[in-house]
Amino acid sequence: MIDYGHGGDVYRYGNDILDFSANINPLGTPVEVLRAFRESDVCKYPDPYNTELRNAISDMTGADPDRIICGNGAASLIFTLSNALRPRKTLIAAPSFSEYERAVKSVGSEIAYYDEKENILPKIENDVDMIFVCNPNNPTGTLKEIEELEALLERASEAGAFVVLDECFNDFLELPEKYSAADLTEKYKNLAVLRSFTKMYAIPGLRLGYMICSDRVVLEKIYSSRQAWEVSAPAEAAGIAACMLAEHCRKTRAYIKEEREYMTREFARLGIKYREPSANFIFFYHKPYLKQILLRKGILIRSCSNYVGLYDGCFRAAVRLHSENMMLIKALEEFDG
Amino acid sequence: MIDYGHGGDVYRYGNDILDFSANINPLGTPVEVLRAFRESDVCKYPDPYNTELRNAISDMTGADPDRIICGNGAASLIFTLSNALRPRKTLIAAPSFSEYERAVKSVGSEIAYYDEKENILPKIENDVDMIFVCNPNNPTGTLKEIEELEALLERASEAGAFVVLDECFNDFLELPEKYSAADLTEKYKNLAVLRSFTKMYAIPGLRLGYMICSDRVVLEKIYSSRQAWEVSAPAEAAGIAACMLAEHCRKTRAYIKEEREYMTREFARLGIKYREPSANFIFFYHKPYLKQILLRKGILIRSCSNYVGLYDGCFRAAVRLHSENMMLIKALEEFDG
Repeated sequence: MIDYGHGGDVYRYGNDILDFSANINPLGTPVEVLRAFRESDVCKYPDPYNTELRNAISDMTGADPDRIICGNGAASLIFTLSNALRPRKTLIAAPSFSEYERAVKSVGSEIAYYDEKENILPKIENDVDMIFVCNPNNPTGTLKEIEELEALLERASEAGAFVVLDECFNDFLELPEKYSAADLTEKYKNLAVLRSFTKMYAIPGLRLGYMICSDRVVLEKIYSSRQAWEVSAPAEAAGIAACMLAEHCRKTRAYIKEEREYMTREFARLGIKYREPSANFIFFYHKPYLKQILLRKGILIRSCSNYVGLYDGCFRAAVRLHSENMMLIKALEEFDG
Repeated sequence: MIDYGHGGDVYRYGNDILDFSANINPLGTPVEVLRAFRESDVCKYPDPYNTELRNAISDMTGADPDRIICGNGAASLIFTLSNALRPRKTLIAAPSFSEYERAVKSVGSEIAYYDEKENILPKIENDVDMIFVCNPNNPTGTLKEIEELEALLERASEAGAFVVLDECFNDFLELPEKYSAADLTEKYKNLAVLRSFTKMYAIPGLRLGYMICSDRVVLEKIYSSRQAWEVSAPAEAAGIAACMLAEHCRKTRAYIKEEREYMTREFARLGIKYREPSANFIFFYHKPYLKQILLRKGILIRSCSNYVGLYDGCFRAAVRLHSENMMLIKALEEFDG
């Protein structure tokens, strides 16, 4: 079997582990979402066009439902996009989410990397067909301003490159709307914005994400590059319920902000070097064997050594409940390696 | 939006329609399966390798778990296979399930058709890369003997062609094991057998299918051609529960056999020409406007005019509960076009 290499691999470490490796909302799955998925009608085929769900997403985001396409998780849309557009050369942030690389490799694309902290513009040569940007970036938390994204989109338009902007962690920012480029899909046809239900609504097991794009040709290509019934009925029902939960999102953001600040304060006190976090995870540097030491205490963090551009001793930890975050801090404090 | 063109499109006709257009087990979703999906843990990522589910399928079928790969519905595996193997020329049964054609078209394959009733061997020229066979065939119900399939596999091996054998309706045959080529995957590395949970367990909304193949290179290619978390947690849980329900399958087969016989007897009495059915649906010929007439009575059947090789006046009707089948027969009896 090929290597998994993602966070959240509780199948290897057991259910009792305190899992800081997956970035899921610590407040858990809202009851409305659980009820909707459990009551969904699985005895009929799902709606191939997810009409009701797209309307709900449209009400939540303001995006035209005709520009929204849903998928079996945002990760599925990454693969379908690659299959539909078949880039010959792809520009990918390093380090960033590894499914971008897997997806375009599977269609034979050449890959060039850019340092996610640096200016990408000089890297957008005319032979680039596709560009992946993750904002805020996973695993480092780097946040790009809209102006920077617009400059990138302008240059990508000139180069004839399609931009996949992954905003799967946008929901956890203090000011999500300020940093979302969803509205830019109207101006830039070469832009697809990816969003996920997985993290904010704590439903990684249900598989639901969506994409906003105004290029009808791209949308048609996606529909023709995949099966007719991509999104399951439980995922669709859960998504419709989730779109109503603005208050859950607000509460989550406030909680995450407070805990993020608690954790960085403690990291600073312990002399642990970290990158300024923006979403619901913190990227930090430590001894390469930290993960093994923490595992002995029943705590799982994400080693980031397998990311392109990173190395042993780079880690990512999710922001969890306060009592859990305290346990991580205590374990780090006790570390005497 | 592209045309849907499948059965079960209750989103267009409403939930109150008596739906003979989708071939789902009329005895409904077993309570064990419903309970398992509702109790599934959606708050963690699904197992990328579906280890527990593959073990359960292995116990049910006798196939080695290492030869089993699960998918977001069998239809998803059809697309992933096409993406992974990228055939240049594909041989497809006509008429047959239209997702084969959509899948290989999306990777730019040339398509050649063979009449599903005729001997396929002369059609397997050396430039054929992939062959789709559906047994029993959807929508006609034609059933191929194992000897015929073995001859096909021999010839395909010589030609270097990969055979996708869709057995999604095998469960409803009177003698399913006699007609399954699952065991032949051991001898023929160029064979993938597709199976579905959708029909027998009445869970089209959950999306769950699997494939049996002994070629490790093909399996690895499938894993690299798709996202890490293809099968949802509710689908996996439902599948594990379903694998225990041998009695449900036996009862269903007996019920379907009796109703199939009732319906063909009545078709014969009414002078309606039909093809000998083998699974849980009946293919028949009637006036082209029959579908519209039946819709006025709240009954939806599948017009097969959009299948390659078929024409107006070809229809498919599922075998449903006796009281429902009586309503269809009564409506056909009253037809005075």
